Amino acid sequence: MSGELRVGLAGLGTVGAGVAKVLLTQMRALSWRAGRGIAITAVSARDKSRPRGVELGGIAFEKDAAAIAERADVDVVVELIGGEEGMARSLVEQALRAKKHVVTANKALLARHGAALAALAERHGVTLKFEAAICGGIPIVKSLREGLIAYDISAVRGILNGTCNFILTQMESTGRPFAEVLGEAQRLGYAEADPTLDIGGGDTAHKLTLLTSLAFGTIPDLDGVAMTGIDKVTPADIGFAGEFGYRLKLLGVARRTAGGIEQLVHPAMVRARTPLADVESSFNAVAADAGEAGPFFFQGRGAGRGPTTSAVIADLVDVARGAFGPVFGRPATELAPATREPAEARMSAYYLRFQALDVPGVMAEISRHLANERVSIESMIQRGRSPGEPVAIVMITHEAQHVAVVRALKAIATSDKIVETPCMIPMEAA
Amino acid sequence: MSGELRVGLAGLGTVGAGVAKVLLTQMRALSWRAGRGIAITAVSARDKSRPRGVELGGIAFEKDAAAIAERADVDVVVELIGGEEGMARSLVEQALRAKKHVVTANKALLARHGAALAALAERHGVTLKFEAAICGGIPIVKSLREGLIAYDISAVRGILNGTCNFILTQMESTGRPFAEVLGEAQRLGYAEADPTLDIGGGDTAHKLTLLTSLAFGTIPDLDGVAMTGIDKVTPADIGFAGEFGYRLKLLGVARRTAGGIEQLVHPAMVRARTPLADVESSFNAVAADAGEAGPFFFQGRGAGRGPTTSAVIADLVDVARGAFGPVFGRPATELAPATREPAEARMSAYYLRFQALDVPGVMAEISRHLANERVSIESMIQRGRSPGEPVAIVMITHEAQHVAVVRALKAIATSDKIVETPCMIPMEAA
Repeated sequence: MSGELRVGLAGLGTVGAGVAKVLLTQMRALSWRAGRGIAITAVSARDKSRPRGVELGGIAFEKDAAAIAERADVDVVVELIGGEEGMARSLVEQALRAKKHVVTANKALLARHGAALAALAERHGVTLKFEAAICGGIPIVKSLREGLIAYDISAVRGILNGTCNFILTQMESTGRPFAEVLGEAQRLGYAEADPTLDIGGGDTAHKLTLLTSLAFGTIPDLDGVAMTGIDKVTPADIGFAGEFGYRLKLLGVARRTAGGIEQLVHPAMVRARTPLADVESSFNAVAADAGEAGPFFFQGRGAGRGPTTSAVIADLVDVARGAFGPVFGRPATELAPATREPAEARMSAYYLRFQALDVPGVMAEISRHLANERVSIESMIQRGRSPGEPVAIVMITHEAQHVAVVRALKAIATSDKIVETPCMIPMEAA
Repeated sequence: MSGELRVGLAGLGTVGAGVAKVLLTQMRALSWRAGRGIAITAVSARDKSRPRGVELGGIAFEKDAAAIAERADVDVVVELIGGEEGMARSLVEQALRAKKHVVTANKALLARHGAALAALAERHGVTLKFEAAICGGIPIVKSLREGLIAYDISAVRGILNGTCNFILTQMESTGRPFAEVLGEAQRLGYAEADPTLDIGGGDTAHKLTLLTSLAFGTIPDLDGVAMTGIDKVTPADIGFAGEFGYRLKLLGVARRTAGGIEQLVHPAMVRARTPLADVESSFNAVAADAGEAGPFFFQGRGAGRGPTTSAVIADLVDVARGAFGPVFGRPATELAPATREPAEARMSAYYLRFQALDVPGVMAEISRHLANERVSIESMIQRGRSPGEPVAIVMITHEAQHVAVVRALKAIATSDKIVETPCMIPMEAA
């Protein structure tokens, strides 16, 4: 471990350039922490000549990222290409096989292939680090892998996608509908031109999958995530949430239950004035129930150049000082299968909203279907009553079986007094 | 680094017993993380026979803690004795000289002797870890030392003492005076029989000193902390804080300024609905401004068996897997002197409260003295006016020189219309 750690940087977008800049300008302070220097020896990007605000003269340039993995003068490959297959996956696999450490920000790749890649790294005596893959600069990977390790974690909850939290807080403060706020977020650059991965919950699911593995020592199980996006959320539901003393947030939730591990991504009602409920704008946050060590809460910037660079640099310094440790907190061979909580076992209290004709018998009909499924009501608001307009019937249930509530709502939706698909949002006990 | 890491545990109080229990029951999971086993080979306590709920049979018992440091079968000494001098200090020094790693929860020792002990550790090729010394289980030491390292930190603020936060939130919710709430906290075991170290700010100062070093790479400088406790805080001030949209919190604040490092411990007005303001009851929290990586916020349990044990275990696993790194994030020889911000340079907005006779000319007198010192008023509340009773004149100033406000208040206090020492509380821009 003498001599400099030699870095091959694959991907020179906004984060890659940020990493290069910090490595070049903070050399002394980083070498104090690492116990040795950290030098970039090779970079790779699609376009060599694009201006990046950082001086890369004297550093080898590879047109083909894969070549980075094979260079004798590279000890660690930083993968900033992205995507769960293709170039990113083959580069990481090739690097690990060539006994290079890997630092990556690639949540999709690890959520899908994390266990296999961890095994590959361990087989070749190198490490694979991914602090930048979850919540940018919040040191949550390190905290779960190395900090909160004395007691079993029972649950992890997070606001893991800044775009969704931005949209929901904007909808809340302006009362404007989803599509309009999304459009504005796109114009401002807060949302992608194709926002599917964010608003559909896929990005949150990637990150949740990794948090689950870190918290429970299980094999990353992306397909085990039950996922609902924010595109159906209405200003009305956000308003009613406020009246009941809640805020609407897109959460990733992983819980250890009697039947296995439950992984959920969904818009949820979070009790107002709790740390998660108070997360504003595009901030990210993670809350963990760490047994006797108590509840923990972390908040910070989840994405963008600075936060992501911060995470990559932390990983590189760990690699430089030889702080390896198993990728997901235990050897890949010891990762437990992610036994999924059966869908029938899923329980929660729910917020329900029905748009109904203001005619006699509608409440009786709704109540009867709920009672048939043993769903009982804790509190209720009825609103509306402009002549001729449908009324909103809004309620919060006691804890009930998820599938039972779904069945009740399906039955209720068939009524000719119900004018819209009923809305169902879980209450998150945070 | 083959074979088990052999632990000598000095101090078997509530935390010591907690550490022993986790080491004995979580062996397998911890060895996965550490890459090798961790075994307790020797313990030391004042009373051998006291029941501790943990089976220590077969482990050597030393009546004298110092003997732990000299045992050939100990690789790391866990110091849980406490105190900045005496037994704790000599044990740690002896252990480091004997080339044993040290893990400690001792904030007072490190705040006072941190630089010397770090140098001693480095000279002997061993490490000194202290996650448990600040905010129990929040992995804040690790996060500052290894996580938030890419960009310069400009400020760290924390609610570092659970007893004080408990008392202040109780005063707020009940409207009862300090002495009464303290008494109750003592009866409930939330406050010590001698509460001076907590309520006077000393405990917060110890922790702040260490946070400052980690954040700015400076020599721990306990004497550089300007300290005010919470014993003068009144329900009236907490009430007025609420009216202005603030909450009163005991904060430790460290800032890098043009003139040096400013370290303050004081009750401060924190803007309501910000993460620090929302910290309830006995929770601890730390907020850091980490440059381009953005603002960070961590909250968790700061004290007690579970959280402190969690921190000690994390340090032990780090030691076991050889993750050393410099004690305060840079080699002891490279720690910068803690240049103190000159008192004259200290600036803040202030909350001021005057108890005045309700007679003509009192506002004129107050205003004149403030104007003389170039302190200008941003907003004001006047309250009181029960016949014959003094009125409360409450204001928030614009940013002003600390020493100028002190001078103005001294002048105002000499007035025969002012019936109480004026109250002055900084507004914390969080």
